Amino acid sequence: MTTLQECRTLDAQDPLRDLRDLFALPDGVIYLDGNSLGALPKAAPARVAHVIIDEWGQGLIRSWNSAGWFSLPQRLGDKIARLVGARAGEVVATDSTSVNLYKVLSVALGTAAQSDPKRKVVVSERSNFPTDLYIAQSLCKERGYALHLVDHDEVATALNHGVAVLMLTHVNYRTGAMHDMAGLTAQAHRQGVLAVWDLAHSAGAVPVDLHAADADFAIGCGYKYLNGGPGAPAFVWVHPRHANRLEQPLAGWWSHAAPFEFEPGYRAAAGIARYLCGTQPILGMAALECGLDTLLAAEPLGGMAALRRKSLALTDLFIRLVEERCAGHGLGLATPREHRLRGSQVCFTRGEGAYPIVQALIARGVIGDYRAGDLSGGPGQAGADILRFGFTPLYLGFENVWRAVEHLHQVLETQEWRRPEFNSKHAVT
Amino acid sequence: MTTLQECRTLDAQDPLRDLRDLFALPDGVIYLDGNSLGALPKAAPARVAHVIIDEWGQGLIRSWNSAGWFSLPQRLGDKIARLVGARAGEVVATDSTSVNLYKVLSVALGTAAQSDPKRKVVVSERSNFPTDLYIAQSLCKERGYALHLVDHDEVATALNHGVAVLMLTHVNYRTGAMHDMAGLTAQAHRQGVLAVWDLAHSAGAVPVDLHAADADFAIGCGYKYLNGGPGAPAFVWVHPRHANRLEQPLAGWWSHAAPFEFEPGYRAAAGIARYLCGTQPILGMAALECGLDTLLAAEPLGGMAALRRKSLALTDLFIRLVEERCAGHGLGLATPREHRLRGSQVCFTRGEGAYPIVQALIARGVIGDYRAGDLSGGPGQAGADILRFGFTPLYLGFENVWRAVEHLHQVLETQEWRRPEFNSKHAVT
Repeated sequence: MTTLQECRTLDAQDPLRDLRDLFALPDGVIYLDGNSLGALPKAAPARVAHVIIDEWGQGLIRSWNSAGWFSLPQRLGDKIARLVGARAGEVVATDSTSVNLYKVLSVALGTAAQSDPKRKVVVSERSNFPTDLYIAQSLCKERGYALHLVDHDEVATALNHGVAVLMLTHVNYRTGAMHDMAGLTAQAHRQGVLAVWDLAHSAGAVPVDLHAADADFAIGCGYKYLNGGPGAPAFVWVHPRHANRLEQPLAGWWSHAAPFEFEPGYRAAAGIARYLCGTQPILGMAALECGLDTLLAAEPLGGMAALRRKSLALTDLFIRLVEERCAGHGLGLATPREHRLRGSQVCFTRGEGAYPIVQALIARGVIGDYRAGDLSGGPGQAGADILRFGFTPLYLGFENVWRAVEHLHQVLETQEWRRPEFNSKHAVT
Repeated sequence: MTTLQECRTLDAQDPLRDLRDLFALPDGVIYLDGNSLGALPKAAPARVAHVIIDEWGQGLIRSWNSAGWFSLPQRLGDKIARLVGARAGEVVATDSTSVNLYKVLSVALGTAAQSDPKRKVVVSERSNFPTDLYIAQSLCKERGYALHLVDHDEVATALNHGVAVLMLTHVNYRTGAMHDMAGLTAQAHRQGVLAVWDLAHSAGAVPVDLHAADADFAIGCGYKYLNGGPGAPAFVWVHPRHANRLEQPLAGWWSHAAPFEFEPGYRAAAGIARYLCGTQPILGMAALECGLDTLLAAEPLGGMAALRRKSLALTDLFIRLVEERCAGHGLGLATPREHRLRGSQVCFTRGEGAYPIVQALIARGVIGDYRAGDLSGGPGQAGADILRFGFTPLYLGFENVWRAVEHLHQVLETQEWRRPEFNSKHAVT
């Protein structure tokens, strides 16, 4: 069994340990929910205050030029590109993940139809994050496609010559199971299928190399592992081979080749700029940039590869300690043990009490979250409720893991979770 | 001629004069561009700092519930409703104006097709704000509709039994010309045409009564007269008779009947919540609420009716003084003189020098803006470049108007605008 002292030693030897100082975390909290909302970068309050007080308040309309507001989607996009294996000029930060998925899926369907209009199926995973499925359902209905949902391990075999687009989330939001992006993209391409990847639980969490995987389209979220703040702008990437082929449907003025010519006729901008739509949320952009900078601060220390090593060490330790300290309490590991199949989170199923156990942990300052049973039949123990713990190596250490498991042990051992206050249900995230 | 002293007297008698104290405006600036980006409410820096430092930093994921983040689109929507003649529960603050237009225009087309699928035309104004035209072009192309663009005064006669939807911006962004919303909506309905109104230059600028006008759909902008900050969330309203009929295409999880059930199948929320899409920009929402509160602060003083009286007095004075003090300098009024046809801005055409004149004024602290000639043939002197001045009665007074005109007089009289530094062109807003 790994001891507290051993965990402290691991922290002392951790080359990334000082990155935690980039974040303002509440005292007494072990934050295991950065996969839902990343923690606050210390730089963000002053940065956003500057944007509000100086750029907006004093600069007013002039700040679109003088403060560089116009180029924020591209400037932030270039920073995101470094985290996901894209090149400068290929990514923009903009809109929400759902809105961006609508854009790329629409273009992916149009692109596929140009090659082979008889392909009328979109394949995705049944336990994909629901917003992805809803957006796909909407577009499929509008355009006359069938949405074929399969289980995690059935994706590869579902690809055939009737399929237009494969749309997957790289790391599953419930289980943390990670797909083989390069392998599935290659299998898709062999069948003439385009691959759209949602990086919501990957960007900033695991190494991603979109060009090495030869992906076609990707989108992702700004407020999870990118630490961009609540409702931060999302991002969108399109492989250069597709970027200028078709127009995306949300053809607002920011996607125009010359927005300030105010032409009545639409002409799409070249490149990724055509994936913008309306005026961008400048306050959210400022906070997101601070979040991105926390990840880029890891570059001199080894970047995403170093963060990945630490993430796997943290999640390995968490799994081992839970299985040791909480044995006999009905927790079932829902996250793959194998490193190449695991994202940066660990989930356990429990037949009863998952929700109040999470509430009891939160009351102790250990913030994870709960997801109700997946009745759609996802990977692993489908149907069971889930306790979900995200591990952000930027601000979590080995002692945090040890203490989190100790709290979980006590909550289970003392049956603290049966207290009424942990069993009254309200909306959860 | 109205003297400076008379203007000071008008300010002293102005019942709305103290509302200016709600704003942080730079010293020495007369801000006539609130129609492009509203000024900073004094409450916004502390409010956003609280959201960042306390709600995000300390509350973390818990703030979705504890800080009420979930209900912000509706809470802000209810405040907007009071400004545009909608009822509580009918408006949400969300996404951008362009994205929201895509949602409502899509539903308007679908609704019209249910009544009469042979109607295959969308009518709009040639000098409508380009993003509206681009979004309409995109949807028309996708759905097989023709977009019929007409001049300002030809709208009514363009409505016939082949038209599905009339899509108009209430107040023209270039000229400030205002349409008769109730009259045109009634004419549209007599022809079986649905009416979609863009309130970007109306909400917070002129009284709007969506229910009295019996409008079908409306959208609007948060960062102009609503003072919500750069890229603030926009808003969307749907008449209750349409709200539950069809689904909008951007069917993200926030538009689902039960987003936190994480169901794989889409079920649209009842009412205006189905016009949400993805996770909302919480920092932008916080700033927008401060902007909305500046307008609601006018309610005890007479609300939008009182703001409108002052707006007309300010724009009347500006027109009169410019025509007196700047006579012979080639300025042509592009904004209607008649009150019922005028929004809250005044524009002048000029054959030469509009851009450097605006730059020279900005250098003197009088911030208006410039719009290049409208080659599409708008109302008034089509083709000429425009000097555009927005008047926000919340923070502008009569002395401001007098001094702005005096600066314009000097810029013209001394030919200051011919200086090279005012003639080097960069991107303008």
